[in-house]
Amino acid sequence: MSRHATLILGGARSGKSSFAERLSRESGLERHYVATGQAFDDEMAQRIARHREDRGTGWTTHEAPIELVKCLEKVGSDGRVVLVDCLTLWVSNLMMAGEDVEQASAELVRHLEKLRGSYLFVSNEVGVGIVPENRMAREFRDHAGRLHQQVAAVADEVYLVAAGLPLKMKG
Amino acid sequence: MSRHATLILGGARSGKSSFAERLSRESGLERHYVATGQAFDDEMAQRIARHREDRGTGWTTHEAPIELVKCLEKVGSDGRVVLVDCLTLWVSNLMMAGEDVEQASAELVRHLEKLRGSYLFVSNEVGVGIVPENRMAREFRDHAGRLHQQVAAVADEVYLVAAGLPLKMKG
Amino acid sequence: MSRHATLILGGARSGKSSFAERLSRESGLERHYVATGQAFDDEMAQRIARHREDRGTGWTTHEAPIELVKCLEKVGSDGRVVLVDCLTLWVSNLMMAGEDVEQASAELVRHLEKLRGSYLFVSNEVGVGIVPENRMAREFRDHAGRLHQQVAAVADEVYLVAAGLPLKMKG
Repeated sequence: MSRHATLILGGARSGKSSFAERLSRESGLERHYVATGQAFDDEMAQRIARHREDRGTGWTTHEAPIELVKCLEKVGSDGRVVLVDCLTLWVSNLMMAGEDVEQASAELVRHLEKLRGSYLFVSNEVGVGIVPENRMAREFRDHAGRLHQQVAAVADEVYLVAAGLPLKMKG
Repeated sequence: MSRHATLILGGARSGKSSFAERLSRESGLERHYVATGQAFDDEMAQRIARHREDRGTGWTTHEAPIELVKCLEKVGSDGRVVLVDCLTLWVSNLMMAGEDVEQASAELVRHLEKLRGSYLFVSNEVGVGIVPENRMAREFRDHAGRLHQQVAAVADEVYLVAAGLPLKMKG
Repeated sequence: MSRHATLILGGARSGKSSFAERLSRESGLERHYVATGQAFDDEMAQRIARHREDRGTGWTTHEAPIELVKCLEKVGSDGRVVLVDCLTLWVSNLMMAGEDVEQASAELVRHLEKLRGSYLFVSNEVGVGIVPENRMAREFRDHAGRLHQQVAAVADEVYLVAAGLPLKMKG
């Protein structure tokens, strides 16, 4: 076996995570979940708990708020599907930690071409809508948009999810 | 005849209402318009008036800012098409009135499975773009997104409209 | 030869400009670039410089922050492809200059039907996401959305770009 990567984009509560979980279950592979989110406050903790409940059992969970590439190297292998939820939170964590997002993104894409196993990357579509007044938000939007383009370029399949329905963009 | 439901999603000024009105006219059925919007200020009154003008004649108009399910039960029947414009305003009205949005959404979806006649639900795609800083806006986004997924799951057809052009997601 | 017009919509960093540039190069026609953006501050200057670098050589560049129609009349002709990047910045410039945006939009669409040559209009999808609290931003969203609908109606092809991948909406 070789590597298979899928990018799943969608808005908040678009059903993108549920779609990714369904694809994972249907793959029949050993399921690994890589969470990039961190519970900084009660609202975030509630969101994470809700996601975990929706996901159900049968997953091995890993946390990778910053060290996503290292985590993928350790977890990914033939016979496994690795669901990363989500790339935008990873970008946001990198920015808050003062890391170089463009370098980290390039590193992720480079590693994606070498890895073995099956990967599903969930991410938020944040580039549409009015230009944010906050400079940090504009930079975040730029970083996320560039990362989406780079991952989409090397991915085997790309989906856009709205109202729980997937629209195939590539593959 | 039985029930036929269509969900039409799109951004502000995407042409989603015009598309729904066109589908209604083409159905040849008796046309009913259910407005969920309320004119709280001049800007909103202007938007409502503009929509009414665009819509033209040949419609029986109903207002249902909160009691949408009761209105659909009263208005919907074989031989009629009921255009609901729009679901996001309904969610917003429910929140402002302190109603339980998840319960009201579930009730709408349950009733949708029992109703007879043809229904078109127009709604705003609000889940994409930067996460709003305002907690109320985040809750609104979550409620709207979940409602869209639920309605899409029971709908016969789902469209995403951009620049006046419909993209079929389901049906 | 006659006129061929393409509308390319997408979010920030969606890859819409790169896609438009690729279509321009593939056309084999003489390439003209019409920039509507103005460098008011360092951030904008940086964005413009980055775009110019991405674009590469082989372009004749024109600036049209306000007088877009006059520029198109002067530049467009058989044997040439004219890339306008982007319509939303033009709308924003018109608003800041106190111009009548609806009149200017109607004039652009009218001229589009008379012009000869090939045209690519890049624009930002700004109508999705939470309703902005700022009234000016809501007006901008309305103007941009109406302009997109009007241009899409007369365009030969319309694309929606996400993560660098084009989705054909018309043509």
